[in-house]
Parts: sequence; structure tokens; C-alpha cells
Amino acid sequence: MNSSGAVTAAMVREAATRILPLAKRTPVLEAEIDGVRVFFKCENLQRGGSFKIRGASNLIFSLTPEELGRGIVAFSSGNHAQGVALAARHVGAKATIVMPSDAPQSKVAATRAYGATIVLYDRMRENREEIACRLLGDTGATLVPPFDHPLIVAGQGTAALELLDEAPELEALVTCLGGGGLTAGCALIAKDINPAIRVFGVEPETGNDWFLSLQKGERVEIPPPPTIADGLRTVVPGKVPFPILQELLEQVLLVTDDELRTAMRFLMGTVKVVAEPSGAAATAGVLSGKVPAGFRQIGVIISGGNLDL
Amino acid sequence: MNSSGAVTAAMVREAATRILPLAKRTPVLEAEIDGVRVFFKCENLQRGGSFKIRGASNLIFSLTPEELGRGIVAFSSGNHAQGVALAARHVGAKATIVMPSDAPQSKVAATRAYGATIVLYDRMRENREEIACRLLGDTGATLVPPFDHPLIVAGQGTAALELLDEAPELEALVTCLGGGGLTAGCALIAKDINPAIRVFGVEPETGNDWFLSLQKGERVEIPPPPTIADGLRTVVPGKVPFPILQELLEQVLLVTDDELRTAMRFLMGTVKVVAEPSGAAATAGVLSGKVPAGFRQIGVIISGGNLDL
Repeated sequence: MNSSGAVTAAMVREAATRILPLAKRTPVLEAEIDGVRVFFKCENLQRGGSFKIRGASNLIFSLTPEELGRGIVAFSSGNHAQGVALAARHVGAKATIVMPSDAPQSKVAATRAYGATIVLYDRMRENREEIACRLLGDTGATLVPPFDHPLIVAGQGTAALELLDEAPELEALVTCLGGGGLTAGCALIAKDINPAIRVFGVEPETGNDWFLSLQKGERVEIPPPPTIADGLRTVVPGKVPFPILQELLEQVLLVTDDELRTAMRFLMGTVKVVAEPSGAAATAGVLSGKVPAGFRQIGVIISGGNLDL
Repeated sequence: MNSSGAVTAAMVREAATRILPLAKRTPVLEAEIDGVRVFFKCENLQRGGSFKIRGASNLIFSLTPEELGRGIVAFSSGNHAQGVALAARHVGAKATIVMPSDAPQSKVAATRAYGATIVLYDRMRENREEIACRLLGDTGATLVPPFDHPLIVAGQGTAALELLDEAPELEALVTCLGGGGLTAGCALIAKDINPAIRVFGVEPETGNDWFLSLQKGERVEIPPPPTIADGLRTVVPGKVPFPILQELLEQVLLVTDDELRTAMRFLMGTVKVVAEPSGAAATAGVLSGKVPAGFRQIGVIISGGNLDL
């Protein structure tokens, strides 16, 4: 399968049909922030606890029976692992997941419970791609990358497709930026539905690889960032998402860990849902006043809820 | 308006149409507990943070313009207050709410934010009904009781109507028992849809007025119970719900405060939603293994999410 090349809005629409048997249509909840109507797309209530199942099932459900028979390999700090494990189980494929040894316990346990084999590695000393490649060479399995694949990007975009279906008057859309798969897929379909919509990406202040990369006009790598948002500790923008967001992203918003904590409390106290730090990043962008004023309706994706309580 | 008399399943269906402009269709989330598929009707994600808006809007939207002009009075430990305030505001009626001075701050603040006038009283020294009657005499306002009215009971039943619409294979339904309005309305419509369904009510071990009353065959009053479930501190079953549940309730399940806390943690960790102690009571009934074994699908109503964090 081709792992480079363009992603289109049509591919997001195809993904929506393909993932239907597994990924669920998550609720959209509403709250007012500073007089603005904010619509929260609750991917924390998604199967597997995050949006990751959208991209994973889009790619895995596109494989041939022969490819599925050779198994699936993925590397992930947690949520992608759960998405891949669930999607692989759904089609009866064996999944091996390479996870950092400091990943939240709840994510490791859940991934194992979904039937995957876990291989742990030291995030500071070992290279997870190398480990994954060793596994691939041994088995002929298919690698399901967390964001750098057109089918993954297209799958993640289905979150925005559903959100805009329920809240068609959105003037802005705010999502979190890790590798960029979610934001790229969502920006593609959102701009296709309404070219006037503005798309904002949020990343941790300490993990500002997207901010630096878009400023410089090329993908910049940063050291592993210290942030509570374990899902946003990527060190470089994804190759596939980068050109998409160069074209479609309005602005990168940088938030602090304190702003992430405030957003998590807001989501629990007002929206009544549990978000993990990464999952609360888009909300933090709105709550902290970093989204420019003037929008009457803003869509926010709560990307995940897998929190060690 | 007649405040006694029978409630029917047809009244629940009429309520569903009447409350449509305000009460929202809340999400149903799913999780597995000990191999049983459990469907959670998330009234904690309801407008006003609980199911109470269903009954309140059913009664208030039935009033004449003249009655609405004289205003609304209600007494409540919190969630009913918010439901009444929102429903009154929706039709432009003035609402005065009598609340105990030890009600959770978040509930008092939210009720005020919805435009209601708050009158606080001492739950241990003063009688809230007397205060409400004084207010009614002064103004000619309409009293919206928290459970003892056929239209309130019918309105609360719409939660089960929606739940069974999405999960028609439920074999048991578990709800919390305060005054009994929610359980009575839900039992009525659930048994009408599927006479084989078993309905369980859950109350705090220390606030076992329903347990004692059903055992004795008449409404028994208990002292104000010490429990973290502030919404279930009623001291006697409601007059309207009592005969309904005498006929339709399978069994009362008693849960401890520790079991309520465990259920709240389970809802946050697994279902990813925030429930207040009362809101987690039905879940506690299932998690603690007090619902008899043998059901393959159980419906649980998470009744509210208004928690002081």
C-alpha cells in the first residue's frame, strides 16, 4: 500500500462508510464559553477511548485477507495502540504493539485486554521504529503508523465530518496537534464542507514542533518534550499531514500544562466528561482565550479520555 | 392542576413530545461489567446536569399563559432546582427556588445562573414546604414538586423511553430511588414496552425509606439520612410514585457510600463521564453485584452529574 501521496475529502467520506462497523458516532455536547457556543465532539467516549480507532480501522479494513493473515504491527504511546488492537481484533488479525515503558498503565492494560501482544521499550534509549521494523521483517506483518499514512489521516477526518453534520454552523474548528493526522484529516473535510471555516491546532508550549515547523516552512524536530499531554509528545510533524496543514491551518495555539489541567477540570465540571491531558488540549486553546475573538460557534474535538485516575 | 391520580404510559409518550424543545436526547454509552452488556443512559449530560428537566418541563410546559404569568415555585436540594429554573426561563416565567443552605455550591450557583431567585433554608430546622406555601400564598404562583405529581413522573419516564428506543433488548433497568419519580415513570413506560423487563431501584443503605416502605406495604418516614448521595436524602417515598412501584418494582437494592464512590470512579475511568453520588447509585447497584445474575443486557440511568469538584 502506498504510504505517501495526497489525501482528499472524498477519502474521508469513504472512510466514514468503511469504519462504520466499529467506530461509533460519538456524542456532541454543548457549553458556552465567554458567550461563544462551543460544540464538543466527544472522542473520549469513542470505542477504545479516543479518535485513534477511526484511522486504524480505516487502514486495517482496507487490507487484503492475505495481508491480515500476516498480522499487524504498530507503535504508540497508548491511544493508537488501543485503536489498532480493537480494529485488528474486529477482523481477526493478530496485532503486536510496541509501547514505551512509561506509557500510562491504563493504556497498556487496555491494549492487552483487547487481545494485542505488547512489546515495551525505553522511550529515551531505544528507537521504536527500529523495533517495529525488526518485527515486520520477522513476520511480513503490515505496519499501521499512528499518523503518516493517507488512510490514517482520512480516517481521523471522519470525526470532523460527523461534528459538522450535527453542528453545520461552526465558524471555527479546534483540534490537538500530535503527529497531525487528526488535524489534517479534519481540516481537509471541514474546508471541503465549508471553505470559510477556520481550523486551529493546539500543541503543548514545550512540544511546539508544529509551531516551529510551520514558521520555518519545513518539518523541524525537537527534543522529546516534557508535558503532561502524553499523546502530544511527538517530536516532528508527520510527513503526510505537514503539507495539508501548511495549506489549511489558520494558526497553531500553544498551551501550558496548567492550561491543560484547567481545561480537564472544566470538562469534568461543566461538560461532565473525563478527558486525558492531550484530549483537553483543544479545549484549553479555547478556554485560555487563545482562539481569536469573533466566532459565534466553535467546534472542539475532545480527542481522548484514557486517564490513569 | 390535579396533583394526584394515575400516571399512564401514554402520558410518558405525550411528555416526550412536550419536552422536546428543551430536554435533549442524551447519549447512551456502553460498557461490560462481569460479562454483562450495560447501557448507560447519560442524564448527567442532560441540560441542567440531570434528568430533572424532563419532569419540570413536562409540568411547566402544560401550564396556561396566565399560570405562567404568576410564576413558578419549587423546593429542591439541587438538581430539580436547575431543571425548574431552565424550564421556567424557556417559557419566560419567573422562578423562585427554595434550597437547603447545605446544598452543593455548584447547584446553587447554577440555579441562580439560570435566572431563578433563590431562597435558602436550614434543612435541619425549617420545613421547606411551609416556606414554599408562604411564597405561593403571596404570589399565586404554581408549585412544581420534585416528584409528587403525575406530570413530573410522566416526564421523568421519558429517559427510559429513549433508552429502550436505543437498546431494545434490555432485560433489566436500574435507576436510583429518591422520591421515586424517576423510577416510577421509567418502570411504567419500560413495562409497557416490554412487560418482561425487570426494574430495580437503588437507594443508600442509610436512606432506606423505599426498602422499608415496600416491605411494610405503606409509606414509612425515616430521619434525614447521612449519605454522600445528596439527591437521595428524601425521607419518605412520594405519594404518586409509591403505588406504581408497589406494583412494578422488582426489588430495592441498598448501596453504601463506599459503593457509590467506587461507582463514581468506575464511571470516570471506564465510561469517561462524571456522575454525582446520587447519579452513580444505579451503577453501584450493578457493580456491587446486587442485581441478580442472569441478565445479558442491563440498562442503567446515570441520573445526574452535578458535583462540587
